[in-house]
Amino acid sequence: MTHTTRIKVRGYHLDLYSHVNNARYLEFLEEARWSFFEDRGNLPRFMATGLALVVVNINIDYRYPATMGDELAIETTVKSVGSRSGVIHQRVTLAGRDTVVAEADVTFVVFDGKANKAIVIEGETRELLETMQNAN
Amino acid sequence: MTHTTRIKVRGYHLDLYSHVNNARYLEFLEEARWSFFEDRGNLPRFMATGLALVVVNINIDYRYPATMGDELAIETTVKSVGSRSGVIHQRVTLAGRDTVVAEADVTFVVFDGKANKAIVIEGETRELLETMQNAN
Amino acid sequence: MTHTTRIKVRGYHLDLYSHVNNARYLEFLEEARWSFFEDRGNLPRFMATGLALVVVNINIDYRYPATMGDELAIETTVKSVGSRSGVIHQRVTLAGRDTVVAEADVTFVVFDGKANKAIVIEGETRELLETMQNAN
Amino acid sequence: MTHTTRIKVRGYHLDLYSHVNNARYLEFLEEARWSFFEDRGNLPRFMATGLALVVVNINIDYRYPATMGDELAIETTVKSVGSRSGVIHQRVTLAGRDTVVAEADVTFVVFDGKANKAIVIEGETRELLETMQNAN
Repeated sequence: MTHTTRIKVRGYHLDLYSHVNNARYLEFLEEARWSFFEDRGNLPRFMATGLALVVVNINIDYRYPATMGDELAIETTVKSVGSRSGVIHQRVTLAGRDTVVAEADVTFVVFDGKANKAIVIEGETRELLETMQNAN
Repeated sequence: MTHTTRIKVRGYHLDLYSHVNNARYLEFLEEARWSFFEDRGNLPRFMATGLALVVVNINIDYRYPATMGDELAIETTVKSVGSRSGVIHQRVTLAGRDTVVAEADVTFVVFDGKANKAIVIEGETRELLETMQNAN
Repeated sequence: MTHTTRIKVRGYHLDLYSHVNNARYLEFLEEARWSFFEDRGNLPRFMATGLALVVVNINIDYRYPATMGDELAIETTVKSVGSRSGVIHQRVTLAGRDTVVAEADVTFVVFDGKANKAIVIEGETRELLETMQNAN
Repeated sequence: MTHTTRIKVRGYHLDLYSHVNNARYLEFLEEARWSFFEDRGNLPRFMATGLALVVVNINIDYRYPATMGDELAIETTVKSVGSRSGVIHQRVTLAGRDTVVAEADVTFVVFDGKANKAIVIEGETRELLETMQNAN
């Protein structure tokens, strides 16, 4: 089953036009990714490795303006895992409906804090990401 | 001359890794766009029309992790104006240096609040955007 | 039973010192207040009245620095209801523990959007607030 | 002369009621405090000491709802310096006018990161804070 995070739209999420502000969606997506890694990916173990997933690109479509009281469902999946980078796909809908609110590809690299550089995605990290990819 | 907005990185802009959080960059870009329209585009007049530029896609590369005390320079330009949508390009560098911190294409449509739909970019709005495009 | 909202601390909630930033706590408190009014206070009905609770003072103690992965429990209660203003008390602890992270009194007035002024707290609004006060 | 920071209210600062959200004011105040320490207080030297000013209480009055396009002037002063804590006073007005938008007392302690505890405010830190207090 696809991992889903639910977020209720509150007054402080809105902006000038009474719609969820476009920067706020990136916080919603980050919330959903942390939850995804926590539920599916052994987050404590990964964080203990000293490696980090560092976002290098976000490509987000804003399709429908969510507003006060809307309940959002954010589906998060691993779309692909290459040798140098991977892509997480995230899709925000109105909960229980087909309306797509936003959709994003989030490209990341695996960063080694000690070596201070991005590294090849292999070994245990690759296994973890592939397991998460196949879990849907 | 390319329009430039300067932002100093503060403690509250950072996140877990002591770098500017990726959602926060979208606020920096929005700040720069408001400033750009204010300085180059007769913002009050545009807002009085009841039209709004609504962002439909942001494609952002994160290239270099900005941190506490960095001064960022955000260049904002109109990249293209089509009949249905336009693209604003924004480039964040460390002020006074060549280091590119982030770079984004922001695609927008012109939304008519009364008609509640996106409209063809023509007339005064097109002129405004083209003037801004050629100002660089 | 005291109304409780749970929030997990994520990477984007932190700041320079890897602790939850003090502005972010105000978003956590607002989240908890919306949830409180939704669960205990017939929020849709109240919002339909055209009245709004407008915050006029927040007095917040920061007691313990919450950090990555902490789960916060936010208790929200109506502390007092006067004729011109009321006070909501909110207490943030580490979930399942006694550690108090933050504690705040939030003073509000009831604002009538049509009349564009704060009004005396009486009638249905007073009843609602008093019911919420006694629910603990 | 009292230290003043100017911030223009933008679309992403607003919330449900098209006013600046109350959490956002705390970011404005933090921005002004960083700027104050930078301009008046030798911030790099202070940060190099390994000490940090940690906020333990904020008491903020919201007096006037700022909205889109308003220019805010934030005055920041050191109000008092005790042996265990100090108070910074911050006052937000509409720039060039008398309208007070918000007013806050921010109480801080001096925290020693190595010893992991708040310390007595003395020596160079006290001098710095007293110089800043008397600069107005």
